[in-house]
Amino acid sequence: MDSYLIQVNGRGDHAPMRDVHLKSTGNTISPGKAKGRKPRWAVRASEMSKKTFNPVRAIVDTMKVEPNPKKSMISLSLGDPTVFGNLPTNDEVTRAVKEVLDSGRWNGYAPSVGYQSCREAVAAYYNCPEAPLKAQDVILTSGCSQAIELALAVLANPGQNILVPRPGFSLYKTLALSMGIEVKLYNLLPEKAWEIDLEHLESLVDEKTACLIMNNPSNPCGSVFSKSHLQEILAVASRQCVPILADEIYGDMVFADCKFEPIATLSTNVPILSCGGLAKRWLVPGWRMGWILIHDRRDIFGNEIRDGLVRLSQRILGPCTLVQGALERILRRTPPEFYHNTLSILKSNADLCYAALSAIPGLQPVRPSGAMYLMVEIEMEHFPEFENDVEFTERLISEQSVFCLPASCFEYPNFFRVVITMPEEMILEACSRIQEFCEMHYQGAEGAQDLECDK
Amino acid sequence: MDSYLIQVNGRGDHAPMRDVHLKSTGNTISPGKAKGRKPRWAVRASEMSKKTFNPVRAIVDTMKVEPNPKKSMISLSLGDPTVFGNLPTNDEVTRAVKEVLDSGRWNGYAPSVGYQSCREAVAAYYNCPEAPLKAQDVILTSGCSQAIELALAVLANPGQNILVPRPGFSLYKTLALSMGIEVKLYNLLPEKAWEIDLEHLESLVDEKTACLIMNNPSNPCGSVFSKSHLQEILAVASRQCVPILADEIYGDMVFADCKFEPIATLSTNVPILSCGGLAKRWLVPGWRMGWILIHDRRDIFGNEIRDGLVRLSQRILGPCTLVQGALERILRRTPPEFYHNTLSILKSNADLCYAALSAIPGLQPVRPSGAMYLMVEIEMEHFPEFENDVEFTERLISEQSVFCLPASCFEYPNFFRVVITMPEEMILEACSRIQEFCEMHYQGAEGAQDLECDK
Ligand SMILES: Cc1ncc(COP(=O)(O)O)c(C=O)c1O
Ligand SMILES: Cc1ncc(COP(=O)(O)O)c(C=O)c1O
Repeated sequence: MDSYLIQVNGRGDHAPMRDVHLKSTGNTISPGKAKGRKPRWAVRASEMSKKTFNPVRAIVDTMKVEPNPKKSMISLSLGDPTVFGNLPTNDEVTRAVKEVLDSGRWNGYAPSVGYQSCREAVAAYYNCPEAPLKAQDVILTSGCSQAIELALAVLANPGQNILVPRPGFSLYKTLALSMGIEVKLYNLLPEKAWEIDLEHLESLVDEKTACLIMNNPSNPCGSVFSKSHLQEILAVASRQCVPILADEIYGDMVFADCKFEPIATLSTNVPILSCGGLAKRWLVPGWRMGWILIHDRRDIFGNEIRDGLVRLSQRILGPCTLVQGALERILRRTPPEFYHNTLSILKSNADLCYAALSAIPGLQPVRPSGAMYLMVEIEMEHFPEFENDVEFTERLISEQSVFCLPASCFEYPNFFRVVITMPEEMILEACSRIQEFCEMHYQGAEGAQDLECDK
Repeated sequence: MDSYLIQVNGRGDHAPMRDVHLKSTGNTISPGKAKGRKPRWAVRASEMSKKTFNPVRAIVDTMKVEPNPKKSMISLSLGDPTVFGNLPTNDEVTRAVKEVLDSGRWNGYAPSVGYQSCREAVAAYYNCPEAPLKAQDVILTSGCSQAIELALAVLANPGQNILVPRPGFSLYKTLALSMGIEVKLYNLLPEKAWEIDLEHLESLVDEKTACLIMNNPSNPCGSVFSKSHLQEILAVASRQCVPILADEIYGDMVFADCKFEPIATLSTNVPILSCGGLAKRWLVPGWRMGWILIHDRRDIFGNEIRDGLVRLSQRILGPCTLVQGALERILRRTPPEFYHNTLSILKSNADLCYAALSAIPGLQPVRPSGAMYLMVEIEMEHFPEFENDVEFTERLISEQSVFCLPASCFEYPNFFRVVITMPEEMILEACSRIQEFCEMHYQGAEGAQDLECDK
């Protein structure tokens, strides 16, 4: 989601959306509406709107990028699996909405938390003995983004803090800062397949910690946590009494050699808000259908958090009813082959991409196990020309017309993120251009160069 | 929208959504996560979620209502024109979404402010020489509710105040209070067809006033402001330098003898954010398609407000792309007869209802000119049995199984609101039951009784 905004080669249909620099009028005089003084116009944007800050935009907007006119642009930056047309959603999904349209019965207002029947459908789909769910445990939202927004808004007060993965999806910080909530970043460890540095995590907890956000499978890492690692995370949450906001939008999107475990199935005491939606697995991110699953078997959230979520949902009234109406059928009837097919394409792309990038001097890709991304370390010492990942990716655009997101966007400098949803040929072409680029700019260590001369 | 929540005779498909009273655990001990102390669970809902307060729910939830089992329930309370099936949307509207589904091209992420082509379609639809609009002046939102939320969030800081009509749509206050913005209520005058008490309005402006919300045509009044009255409102805004948030969701929904003037067409200097959407005129409130039109010909909002809106829109990413994709066709192809037909039904219902209620002792309906509502004054002195409008409407349910919303929900005691979207027979039946109810409980004044005896 972060990255659909980046339109280096903006398709005509998309807004340019560049952040224009704030007009500095120098006018700091108060509106002067007090009686007796002549009022004058002085409309300023609110503090909150100024604090609402998208790091991806901030970084990308300052990239001075002109793709190489001799090469067609390849963007590996968009976290939107639909842009290349190679990953259409399933017919059942589309048909379900058409049926809803034909019925004419889903045009009215839904309750702000979603129709009861639709909440039931989601509950039934995710219900399991280890983490039972009923309709009342489900709140439908306008995308997973709104699920995260509501979850944060109910759990944290301004002045409190939340624990957020680094590298991690930028929306967490954007939302938190706009609400005046402090963000504490805990480290993921690339050398341990992006597991959480648990000691670091636990060291960040203090009396103002409102929740721990974990994201599994991960954007931008493409990593999938093992059962035992999830149990370790739960142990920290349990010991420190910190509720979990689990961003599981990529739930079940894991490659065949791996298993996705919803974190709520592994705990009996930690209260968990799990956020998900149709965007990724069903390949319809524009439909804006998300949900919060409330797992609270010890009644720690209690009615207070549930009520808070209901109240907050009344502000804008949840997701489009056309998609709500289709939800039950989408969840029940989408054929398993559809999911398998998506995953086998992603897995094959991941393998291709990993193999190609591994062979490039100066790059260290980390092998993904799920989601739609792969992170690549840039051995900056071998690219002395470039200051950092932003400059590296900038030059990759201007020379090779290949756009990858610098991982500074995820608070993780010296990496870049590759999206692996595009067609195979495109990935191969992109990798070979990245190779050309790296070979051009690679500076071996003295020793390495000597070795070459010796040959 | 306020009232779709009220489900006295809850349809099975709807959540009960009752506000459960907050569990008072008496536990005010801090979480105790400081190092050295043993942490304990103490998850509390945020202040913001507690401040997010829907007055309609608060009032309706405390109504102890059991409809009369001998009479079928008639609810005249739902601001949802789709519930009775007599006002279906137009085929073109439905077909437009089906085409979008068939194309398979609208499943991906849109820019957070909406697709450029869709913003253009809205701009073209509302563009006129007096108030020109371009794509960049349009921001698509998840319903008019989100349009209002974004507009408020960009214009006002906590501690500032906004001017809100009384009686008025409850969402304004709900949103403002949850954001820590103070609400100052200005009076509408029933004896002047619900025009604004301009002196009162102007007297409320102070140096902390961030904007003036006006709603035309009005929920709950069904009133439509004349051109000259709109000019008077603009004069206040201009004199006091207060920007306007114009809630025009019922724009163009005015009866034949009346004309709707978008307020932006009457001003060249006052900066205006006009909020609208598909909900009411196109009869698809569940689809959650709304918009903000930015009118700022003197560049008073400037880039600052525009940027602020863009930033805020990135929090949850706007409306469902299926509806975005259909927007151009919906706006272009919906046949004029469709709108006329809706309005002639509403007008005929309004006339019927007004005539029937006018004849009832103790009630004073105010004739509407648009929207889908009608306000009725209860001459409380003639109903000494009842404390207030809430008790009156409560008893109307328990005796006659007719549900109207007490206007306390709109900060206007001693009135009730009638929705006029239901089939004619239902309105007639409801009015005759209201008549029976009033005749049963009416107490004439001494003088009036004497007069009758004299005859
Ligand atoms: C980790 C993560 N969480 C949440 C989202 C937002 O999902 P949605 O499009 O449903 O709002 C994304 C989208 O890219 C994501 O990568
Ligand atoms: C005056 C007014 N404004 C805004 C809205 C909200 O519209 P939407 O359903 O598009 O969010 C309503 C809904 O009833 C309304 O009556």
